[in-house]
Amino acid sequence: MSDGGKLDAYGQAGVNYAAIDPGKLMAQRAAKRTAVTLESRGVQELAESRGESAYVIDLGDRYLATVTEALGTKNLVADEVRALTGRSHYDAIAKDTVATILNDLCTLGGAPLCLTAYWGAGRTDWFEDLERMRDLTEGWASASEEARCAWGGGETQVLVGAIEPTRVVLGGSAVGTIAKDRLLTGSRLQAGDAILIAAASGIHANGLTLARKIAQDLPQGYATKVPGDGRGYGEVLLDATPLYGPLVEALQDGGVDLHYAVHVTGHGWRKLMRAEQALRYVVELLPPSPPIFELLSNAAKIDRVEAYATFNMGAGFAFFVPPHQVELARDAARQIGRELLQIGHVEAGPKEVVLRPLGATLAGDSLQIR
Amino acid sequence: MSDGGKLDAYGQAGVNYAAIDPGKLMAQRAAKRTAVTLESRGVQELAESRGESAYVIDLGDRYLATVTEALGTKNLVADEVRALTGRSHYDAIAKDTVATILNDLCTLGGAPLCLTAYWGAGRTDWFEDLERMRDLTEGWASASEEARCAWGGGETQVLVGAIEPTRVVLGGSAVGTIAKDRLLTGSRLQAGDAILIAAASGIHANGLTLARKIAQDLPQGYATKVPGDGRGYGEVLLDATPLYGPLVEALQDGGVDLHYAVHVTGHGWRKLMRAEQALRYVVELLPPSPPIFELLSNAAKIDRVEAYATFNMGAGFAFFVPPHQVELARDAARQIGRELLQIGHVEAGPKEVVLRPLGATLAGDSLQIR
Repeated sequence: MSDGGKLDAYGQAGVNYAAIDPGKLMAQRAAKRTAVTLESRGVQELAESRGESAYVIDLGDRYLATVTEALGTKNLVADEVRALTGRSHYDAIAKDTVATILNDLCTLGGAPLCLTAYWGAGRTDWFEDLERMRDLTEGWASASEEARCAWGGGETQVLVGAIEPTRVVLGGSAVGTIAKDRLLTGSRLQAGDAILIAAASGIHANGLTLARKIAQDLPQGYATKVPGDGRGYGEVLLDATPLYGPLVEALQDGGVDLHYAVHVTGHGWRKLMRAEQALRYVVELLPPSPPIFELLSNAAKIDRVEAYATFNMGAGFAFFVPPHQVELARDAARQIGRELLQIGHVEAGPKEVVLRPLGATLAGDSLQIR
Repeated sequence: MSDGGKLDAYGQAGVNYAAIDPGKLMAQRAAKRTAVTLESRGVQELAESRGESAYVIDLGDRYLATVTEALGTKNLVADEVRALTGRSHYDAIAKDTVATILNDLCTLGGAPLCLTAYWGAGRTDWFEDLERMRDLTEGWASASEEARCAWGGGETQVLVGAIEPTRVVLGGSAVGTIAKDRLLTGSRLQAGDAILIAAASGIHANGLTLARKIAQDLPQGYATKVPGDGRGYGEVLLDATPLYGPLVEALQDGGVDLHYAVHVTGHGWRKLMRAEQALRYVVELLPPSPPIFELLSNAAKIDRVEAYATFNMGAGFAFFVPPHQVELARDAARQIGRELLQIGHVEAGPKEVVLRPLGATLAGDSLQIR
């Protein structure tokens, strides 16, 4: 964040992302050195994909993209809300998990081929609750179908002593291929590009540790009505994440010369600066922000700028297209019943996100992901 | 197991695998129905790969194979042993995790291209222990290099409230390609094939929940000397799992007409019956069994037959080859410094594993994995 002296909103919830960095860096360096092994197999990695949302290998005639992701703790909200509503909500949780994985994969321009699941529980009886299992499996299959991606199985495990007894850890992996002319990496992004966003449905799967902490302080916990929405806090948090891959495919199928795509997740709008290049992202219009974010910001006592540096604030996914193709892109999105909103444009650097409506800037060095 | 009335050894440790089945079946059915989505992408799944150790898609000119796996609770042993030895042992744990993933992938004949990691911790400070992180990352990178597989990054997460505060959940996913003439599925297996095995280094990553329970009853816990080995129980458990993929590649490169391959994991030697066909696996010779298994069997009060139905008992990986190619296969293995032992042969069904040296049989219906 630009305001380096202030406690990061995640820090309030006991997750100190800055502290992860030295170990993460160690892993990134060790991982990088393994790439040479591919030479003996006649293929090579796409080096610039390291630091992007998916890892890419050049097979010669096409690219192979893969990503491993996991949900986080959103399902712990479902566990609590089930006690209130009687519904497991694991159909939505499944879609969130699938979306977490596939929304990363599609940022590189990849079409998903298959998805494998990881479901680890703290106790055997987690898998014996057949109502919840039905919701989980139906939600997972439906999301796979919507993405035109085969669910190829996966691993279920019981980890006594590692996972909390009543909890489950949900994640998985996806593989896709990318046609040679459809690859999206930051290098295609350029000054002048228009920034289009696809709406978020709510908090998605990021910021849930903080949201869970906030629930403890709300007058009626997860049953507290969200002002401007009317439903309970827990139910609103559980709105499922949309799949953005079909939009990426619709734009590319529709002839849009897509320059880059970003899945707005952890770090909120700082993620707009994901590309390595030094570019300035000028935001002139803020999209409608779901009411949940006002409640979260108030409860966490963070100002609006910090809220944009933390949450998606209504922007689930960003597309960067040449300015003369904005209408072509919007039309392509409408072909599949989706809307894109132009919120700004890209300029020559330094790297930063300028939030004109808020008179604020998110500095480039506040996003350490490479 | 053949002795259906007896408590499964895993049941003793609070993991009731039989109870998982209805939910797993639900997931398998829902997953299966998603395969048709691939038609719109001009590819198709290899239907017979469902139920195998990796999922396979036919890309036309080659196959794509993928698997998601996770370690289980072996790292909880490392956490306890570190207090005794001062060593984190996470270099071995990393190799175990990579091996768990890649040893499944290679059973289909696939050469790995890349691996992505999932590391989920219960608290941020797990990633701040840089000695353990160095061991984990070095072990992970070295294992990737040995397998000639690029480590393409992955996901690190802190899951407060879902994962136990001091613990980590380790898993990941791998992707590989398989040349059209190298695909291994059960359909190539036939009566007359010889069964060759590659030695296990110890318990690998299966049966650890039981092994951890046993540690509680040993006189000096993880420091208890293992008869016949001399090292402490914890250290012996932590011997890293070998990578068997290089052996699969060596055999296929060496011109062996490999018919099938099995990674001997959960369910012990029952896994030899992994192929769908009704075939009888006649074992005439038992390989040397590491001393740890005698201690485990005695402590769990299971007889030798049940031990073979539970643990790998020294057989880490099985190869099925035409009888006239046994020496060719053994020579190919020696080219990379590995030994294969012929332990028996395949006959016409019914499906069962006949353990001649023990005068016992493991029945086909004791392995429910499809």
